[in-house]
Amino acid sequence: MFANDAVKLTATEARDRIAKGELTAEAYTQACLDQIALRDKDIEAWAFIDPARALEQARALDKHRASGRALGQLHGLTVGIKDIIDTADMPTQHGCPIFKGRQPDTDAACVSALRAAGAVILGKTVTTELANITPNKTRNPHNPAHTPGGSSSGSAAGVAAHMMPLALGTQTGGSVIRPASFNGVHGLKPTLGLISRTGVLLQSHTLDTVGVYGRSLGDLALIAEALSGHDPSDSVSYDRTRPRLVEALAAGTAVKPTFAVFKSPAWSVAEEPAKAAFLALVGRLGAAASEVTIPEMDDIVAHHGNVMSAENAGYYGPLLARHPEGISKGFTERLQASLKVTGGDYVRSLNARETAYAAVARVLDQNAAILTLSSTGPAPKGHASTGNAIFNGMWTLLGVPCVSLPLMTVGGMPFGLQLVGKRRDEARLLATARHVETLLASKR
Amino acid sequence: MFANDAVKLTATEARDRIAKGELTAEAYTQACLDQIALRDKDIEAWAFIDPARALEQARALDKHRASGRALGQLHGLTVGIKDIIDTADMPTQHGCPIFKGRQPDTDAACVSALRAAGAVILGKTVTTELANITPNKTRNPHNPAHTPGGSSSGSAAGVAAHMMPLALGTQTGGSVIRPASFNGVHGLKPTLGLISRTGVLLQSHTLDTVGVYGRSLGDLALIAEALSGHDPSDSVSYDRTRPRLVEALAAGTAVKPTFAVFKSPAWSVAEEPAKAAFLALVGRLGAAASEVTIPEMDDIVAHHGNVMSAENAGYYGPLLARHPEGISKGFTERLQASLKVTGGDYVRSLNARETAYAAVARVLDQNAAILTLSSTGPAPKGHASTGNAIFNGMWTLLGVPCVSLPLMTVGGMPFGLQLVGKRRDEARLLATARHVETLLASKR
Repeated sequence: MFANDAVKLTATEARDRIAKGELTAEAYTQACLDQIALRDKDIEAWAFIDPARALEQARALDKHRASGRALGQLHGLTVGIKDIIDTADMPTQHGCPIFKGRQPDTDAACVSALRAAGAVILGKTVTTELANITPNKTRNPHNPAHTPGGSSSGSAAGVAAHMMPLALGTQTGGSVIRPASFNGVHGLKPTLGLISRTGVLLQSHTLDTVGVYGRSLGDLALIAEALSGHDPSDSVSYDRTRPRLVEALAAGTAVKPTFAVFKSPAWSVAEEPAKAAFLALVGRLGAAASEVTIPEMDDIVAHHGNVMSAENAGYYGPLLARHPEGISKGFTERLQASLKVTGGDYVRSLNARETAYAAVARVLDQNAAILTLSSTGPAPKGHASTGNAIFNGMWTLLGVPCVSLPLMTVGGMPFGLQLVGKRRDEARLLATARHVETLLASKR
Repeated sequence: MFANDAVKLTATEARDRIAKGELTAEAYTQACLDQIALRDKDIEAWAFIDPARALEQARALDKHRASGRALGQLHGLTVGIKDIIDTADMPTQHGCPIFKGRQPDTDAACVSALRAAGAVILGKTVTTELANITPNKTRNPHNPAHTPGGSSSGSAAGVAAHMMPLALGTQTGGSVIRPASFNGVHGLKPTLGLISRTGVLLQSHTLDTVGVYGRSLGDLALIAEALSGHDPSDSVSYDRTRPRLVEALAAGTAVKPTFAVFKSPAWSVAEEPAKAAFLALVGRLGAAASEVTIPEMDDIVAHHGNVMSAENAGYYGPLLARHPEGISKGFTERLQASLKVTGGDYVRSLNARETAYAAVARVLDQNAAILTLSSTGPAPKGHASTGNAIFNGMWTLLGVPCVSLPLMTVGGMPFGLQLVGKRRDEARLLATARHVETLLASKR
């Protein structure tokens, strides 16, 4: 299943070999393209790919290295870009026929940051229609009869199939963490405002969050750090010094962490085998993990729905009115329902977010992370839906960082443990996640 | 019509006399109370007043002065507080029977700031029901058959009737500037976030703005400066050093200002004699004033309506559901209509605000201020309505500072010239307003 051993490397390993001259960016990119040739017929992770251009970028990076100049943090690494994120040299089509052939003039800020860090922009990964509910063509690499999840379908599936070590996704409901879970990769949906959204399709200004995929925590830290510059042109981007995530991960947790196990209002919707696997996993953490209830979260699923619906209606409502023929029946019906959410409900749900976050922050004053499921279970069979985002929307609404660790399986299909941290503290969340991985590996 | 010559003083004059020992705070407060006794039977500006407590505060301030300690910026000045702003020692009843007898535990942040600056909190001034449309008992001091405007009815009427030199109001539609216009006083609705809203009744987080009344520009600068500390607990309060408004006003404008005359989408609703008076006034400014059009403002009245309705529904909707008997028929009908604004409309109107502000900011790059009417004309006769806020809501939506200058009359009733400035630049706006007053006085 591997065209070349190079694609087995984590991003961090590949970056180090390229930096040392043991591997060229061109050879590495070619290995990724070979892997795509090998696997993509079954998976269809790509909305657009131009091998010649990818190799051209790689050769330029090899020349840069040969010149002796300093290397970026991601020098020579290939990255897949979700097809709602603008690229100046490739179309960005939003998984929607209305935008067929659309060619942006400029890179999104996050793509610029990747290029500045020396990444090879490999291609555009498949998104569901307008990053919402209607599935696209991608299939799950663990079993093509199953959904890869959405909306960042191609990014998660491509990283899982070793087509590239890193990819960008976005989450408005559960579009980063759920595909991470279903495809058995590591995913990070950071704090709202850590990664710039300038040049990313807007469907909900309160929720839309750019996130990242990799095959290790170190890789998430590596790319998230490269993407975390402040962008005054994104209203939610907060001023900060760039967090040193790689360093924080290496340093580890300052004290032995404790964990808040939170089943959440989504628990009743989770599948029984997934619940059992989750409870067994947290059981292995022993006394460090204890269950919490957070009554302020009781109605949070509905609040997320109100915010997403009102903002979807605000941004996509006019699009639907102009191009009714260009939007799927399923999403049209959903948008029409969204148009009925009142401004008053929306305002109250926005405010409920702060009340709920205050309660969550209190839990996180006492615990290093909240532990919960990343999805209702593994990827469902079939392609009529990308699965349920109910374990994710609540955290998207709160704007908190979430990481999914591929630590569980049911029936041979992977799914994730979700760790949730405090706003603006990816460093602590990633170090805590590493602690969990190490602890569970040692107890295996 | 004056119980005592002291009440004729501006706040700045009274403060200086008190500081020099030519007037005691107690004597000054007594003069204000005497003026209230003389005038308030006709005007009814007060929702709550406790003369003994006011005199007690004044005597404490006199003792403070006698002790030789430094004096606050407002030492000994009496201030009227709109009855939706919390006071720990007086009820705050929101002009609504649901809140009859309500006694807050703590002062609003703006009241604390006034006390810290040495002000005497004289009493609570009449507001319309829940600071919205339904009139309360106050009458216009220029002619009690006319409305004083609303919702800050008692604050504007009380300052106009020399009951106190300074007062606090709030504006969500036109509730600071319109009463300033109708009562012939100076009013400032500052930038959203200049004055803290902590402890102020919340009806619209995007619009609600605390403003001030006085009988001169210097008095507005004096009190606004005392109130302009940053408050992290109000989400719209922006970090800043305290603006030196008194100094800026004294320094004057750096260059000879030019003015953008903007009739605005409200122009068609203005009364003919008011339009004529406005055009005559700007004509007296000569070549410095030239008319502008701002197409981005064409739909701004509807956008303000959507934002106010959605947020009103969000905050007052649940109150109406719990206490239908406690809310007037007129406001009930308005709230019921508000419940119909969709989340999508609300989102689009919020975004339209930024587009419109960008256009207004460009006009203000070229001009020192926008000149427009403060109201559709002078205070209408009758008490069934507090008049039309159409000249104000658009600026409240944009969050820009506005000042009303009592420079015009029709039929013996005053109304204001409104100057609009850039966000966060009250200093320039006040200096420009002073320039206009001086220029027009010299040309009289």
